[in-house]
Amino acid sequence: MRSSQYLLSTVKETPADAEVISHKLMLRAGMVRRVASGMYTYLPTGVRVLRKVEQIVREEMNKAGAIEVLMPMVQPAELWQESGRWDKMDAELLRFKDRHTRDFVLGPTHEEVITDLVRREITSYKQLPLNLYQIQTKFRDERRPRFGVMRAREFLMKDAYSFHLSQDSLQQTYDAMYQAYCNIFSRLGLDFRPVLADTGAIGGSMSHEFHVLAASGEDAIAFSDESDYAANIEMAEALAPAGERAGATQALAEVATPNAKTVADVAALLQQDMALVSKTLIVYAAKADDKAAQTLVALVLRGDHELNEIKAEKLPQVQSPLVFASEEEIRAAIGAGPGSLGPVGMPLPVIVDRSAAHLADFICGANKDGYHLTGVNWDRDIKDYSVADLRNIVEGDTSPCGKGKLVIKRGIEVGHIFQLGDRYSQALKAGVLNEEGKHQIMTMGCYGVGVSRIIAAAIEQNHDDYGIIWPDAIAPFQIALIPMNMHKSARIEEATVRLYNELTAAGFEVLFDDRKERPGVMFADMELMGIPHSIVVGERNLDNQQVEYKNRRSGEKEMLDIAAVVDAMAQKLAK
Amino acid sequence: MRSSQYLLSTVKETPADAEVISHKLMLRAGMVRRVASGMYTYLPTGVRVLRKVEQIVREEMNKAGAIEVLMPMVQPAELWQESGRWDKMDAELLRFKDRHTRDFVLGPTHEEVITDLVRREITSYKQLPLNLYQIQTKFRDERRPRFGVMRAREFLMKDAYSFHLSQDSLQQTYDAMYQAYCNIFSRLGLDFRPVLADTGAIGGSMSHEFHVLAASGEDAIAFSDESDYAANIEMAEALAPAGERAGATQALAEVATPNAKTVADVAALLQQDMALVSKTLIVYAAKADDKAAQTLVALVLRGDHELNEIKAEKLPQVQSPLVFASEEEIRAAIGAGPGSLGPVGMPLPVIVDRSAAHLADFICGANKDGYHLTGVNWDRDIKDYSVADLRNIVEGDTSPCGKGKLVIKRGIEVGHIFQLGDRYSQALKAGVLNEEGKHQIMTMGCYGVGVSRIIAAAIEQNHDDYGIIWPDAIAPFQIALIPMNMHKSARIEEATVRLYNELTAAGFEVLFDDRKERPGVMFADMELMGIPHSIVVGERNLDNQQVEYKNRRSGEKEMLDIAAVVDAMAQKLAK
Repeated sequence: MRSSQYLLSTVKETPADAEVISHKLMLRAGMVRRVASGMYTYLPTGVRVLRKVEQIVREEMNKAGAIEVLMPMVQPAELWQESGRWDKMDAELLRFKDRHTRDFVLGPTHEEVITDLVRREITSYKQLPLNLYQIQTKFRDERRPRFGVMRAREFLMKDAYSFHLSQDSLQQTYDAMYQAYCNIFSRLGLDFRPVLADTGAIGGSMSHEFHVLAASGEDAIAFSDESDYAANIEMAEALAPAGERAGATQALAEVATPNAKTVADVAALLQQDMALVSKTLIVYAAKADDKAAQTLVALVLRGDHELNEIKAEKLPQVQSPLVFASEEEIRAAIGAGPGSLGPVGMPLPVIVDRSAAHLADFICGANKDGYHLTGVNWDRDIKDYSVADLRNIVEGDTSPCGKGKLVIKRGIEVGHIFQLGDRYSQALKAGVLNEEGKHQIMTMGCYGVGVSRIIAAAIEQNHDDYGIIWPDAIAPFQIALIPMNMHKSARIEEATVRLYNELTAAGFEVLFDDRKERPGVMFADMELMGIPHSIVVGERNLDNQQVEYKNRRSGEKEMLDIAAVVDAMAQKLAK
Repeated sequence: MRSSQYLLSTVKETPADAEVISHKLMLRAGMVRRVASGMYTYLPTGVRVLRKVEQIVREEMNKAGAIEVLMPMVQPAELWQESGRWDKMDAELLRFKDRHTRDFVLGPTHEEVITDLVRREITSYKQLPLNLYQIQTKFRDERRPRFGVMRAREFLMKDAYSFHLSQDSLQQTYDAMYQAYCNIFSRLGLDFRPVLADTGAIGGSMSHEFHVLAASGEDAIAFSDESDYAANIEMAEALAPAGERAGATQALAEVATPNAKTVADVAALLQQDMALVSKTLIVYAAKADDKAAQTLVALVLRGDHELNEIKAEKLPQVQSPLVFASEEEIRAAIGAGPGSLGPVGMPLPVIVDRSAAHLADFICGANKDGYHLTGVNWDRDIKDYSVADLRNIVEGDTSPCGKGKLVIKRGIEVGHIFQLGDRYSQALKAGVLNEEGKHQIMTMGCYGVGVSRIIAAAIEQNHDDYGIIWPDAIAPFQIALIPMNMHKSARIEEATVRLYNELTAAGFEVLFDDRKERPGVMFADMELMGIPHSIVVGERNLDNQQVEYKNRRSGEKEMLDIAAVVDAMAQKLAK
């Protein structure tokens, strides 16, 4: 492609309305333009990257035995009413009426449509398992779209849905998808991690997120520094501290702690480490039935640890979703305010985090405003309590896999695989005749990749002060061919055109910058666009029958014999 | 692909709700399923064809210098208000509000979005010409969607838009698109014709439609039997009859024609050919200004010819769109009813069709109820009249190109190229600095291909009693590999699997029908799906190290040595 016949649309100035680096660089490199809030036109450079990502995803899905379909973006309300999501989903589900005033939605996802299709098409266990996918435009009416294509309203997604009669079969397809996703992100050239994820409110039994690692990522992920273990920080188990708990050495004593409202205040006042001060949080207890009066539960953690709400609400004793008791409710139940609570003499059930349960001679509130207890010891001072994993992990914790310490990194979620179970198949009565000839509801998996989001994530991970640094596999062009002052030198032009023809004939995707621009402008544009390999044709080197090669990522330069360029590029791009 | 790992979804019964053959066959062959009125899910077989069509369109667009972009499906109302189409378009333009009650539309086309993009990105004549295209999902809320994907509400389209500063430049890109479209439809393997089309209400100067010829086509197209000339029947010029008009031989005479209400009645009564009886139609005249009183014009045609309304309303004397005068208005102006009108003594301006103007000694109404005139002759009996092309062509007319006679065939419109002019660029003030440094509004072309519609059109053109007959280039699979009773014969299985591996290794797309079905069921399915080449592996032929090849289109069978199959297929598919 010659620049003069292309739409470069690079921009020097950093756009004011872009908050994150990928958004800024996608605007500056001429990849996207905003049409409305959360809606973008992909310019030619953006489309080239998008199509490459799409094609890699498609190839790996096909290889894993998934079959491509294409469902409509506009979906009839009836299916969403049948699944119950018509009422459950908020305004993110964009609803509208057609000319005959029938209700429709713009599809944010396709569980309903695919389940409806499969219940009509598939009648026998012989046709299972089945894994159908599509690469298709989605719409989610986000309240606050931002970060460019990272969180857009209209976006391109690969969504797959699998159907099974047994958990074993679901697990097999799930594993195949896990592997396919690893292949996809490896081929894309991204540093990524599959992490154990929470299955959330939808239910389901197993879920992994795929994160592209980037300092700017929205999500925190915990890794072992010695094994493959990785989990969303909300999911990572905090193990009990190793070894026996120390024995009690102090007597229980009450101390006045006026004006000490926080753990930090108490620790400072008593000149102790925050890890030795426990904190007690009061939450709603799970109810046996709807009519039972609301009761409360006390959760106890070390003062330097954070409650993990997802872990807490999964406990059978605790109401889900989690509700914190008000100060009024706390006073009514315990007779003291939130700043002075503790497990000693607590009139509520007590659940203690594993780390807090390992403390000896610790400090807690006295359940009496303005007082704390010191020298507190489990079993001696508190008889009735249970122990659970209640906290967020912190860096340095032992990895739940048993090998290594946990480190925390940030990631951008670009894929999600999920064992759905029968949430949708049950609602839509999607069943088949099983081997015994009986009607059986299918079990489902779903598998998503944010195709357009990957582009933003790739840039968050791969950029420098000069612009984007594309991995070879998804670069808009593989090679930038830059002649120096071609419009003044027939010799430069002749050499560059010949090289361009040779390289394109060899199958390389070359952007030949034939604009009448100063070399500096051309270099800056090619670097901003992130083209991984560049070749500069200049007068002086031409005297030696050479051109200069530069690697965008390493910055390394080398001289290449002009006759050897095609071979050299084949080697570099095969890496 | 093995059938057992694929979603065949073929159906024996002809679906009751499908009106046209392509819709029936797409349902029966497992290509699409209806989700809602005018909305379809493409099943795997449908997607495979769709992606092939898409890729051929993409390659030819790229080759012609067009650059791919991708615009959002959801578009802000502001742009449609700016172009004026927000008010002008009827309910086909689906309007809705987002969560913040802002107005949006589902894009039926993208003139507004692309013109907005270009006015922001392009500032100088140096960046022109520019031709941008996308392959993208469109939505038109048709009042009565039908014929399956032929007239769906949601559909896939390739739309391109070009920008220029001169008519010459527009014409060059238009010509390149014309050629690209010819390449596309040739590569698709379809019998098609580019035809001159009416530019319609949008204005613009030049337009061609590309039609796939099929007996079931909605549109009539006129061709020369000796040249490349082809035009939409509405556009085809009817030339003046050759030679001098015959001289007058009869005297003008009035005859009573009571109860003769039509041309056919008059011809029968007077025992003359309908071609010798003229008919006179009264329509509204064009007004000089809005306040002028409405006047009328008389149009005169041969009794055996049909008025072409598009030709009529393009005349400067006639109001556009065409309005026929009521009987009341006709009586008030002429003093006789519609059945007795004629040009002799007509008090209105008279415009005569070229063929009617070539008549001598002809018959017309006497402008007196119940009477006609015979022996009428132009110039002698009617002095004041003008001549124009007013009629639809008929088979046998001389081709407007001067070579050959016209024949009429039916076609399905699958592409349309159009010189838009400044309709949108003017409304959106899309201009650039020209060579003189002055701001100049751009001129535009637009170029559409109905990607999903092509599939239906291809089937309308290529099918028989057994199902679809795909052209090689867009077949869902190139080869059907059918083993006879494989599940009872290890030898058959071994030979078929080896052949399958060889053929797929050689790059062929093979559907290996490994189902436990009777041969008849497999043959019927492969024929229904239209796979162009099939290879049957049977016990008897295997004794001779042979398999049977069958061509779907010709029905011809031949025996192939099993060792020569790959070469034979390469030859057949290279054709």
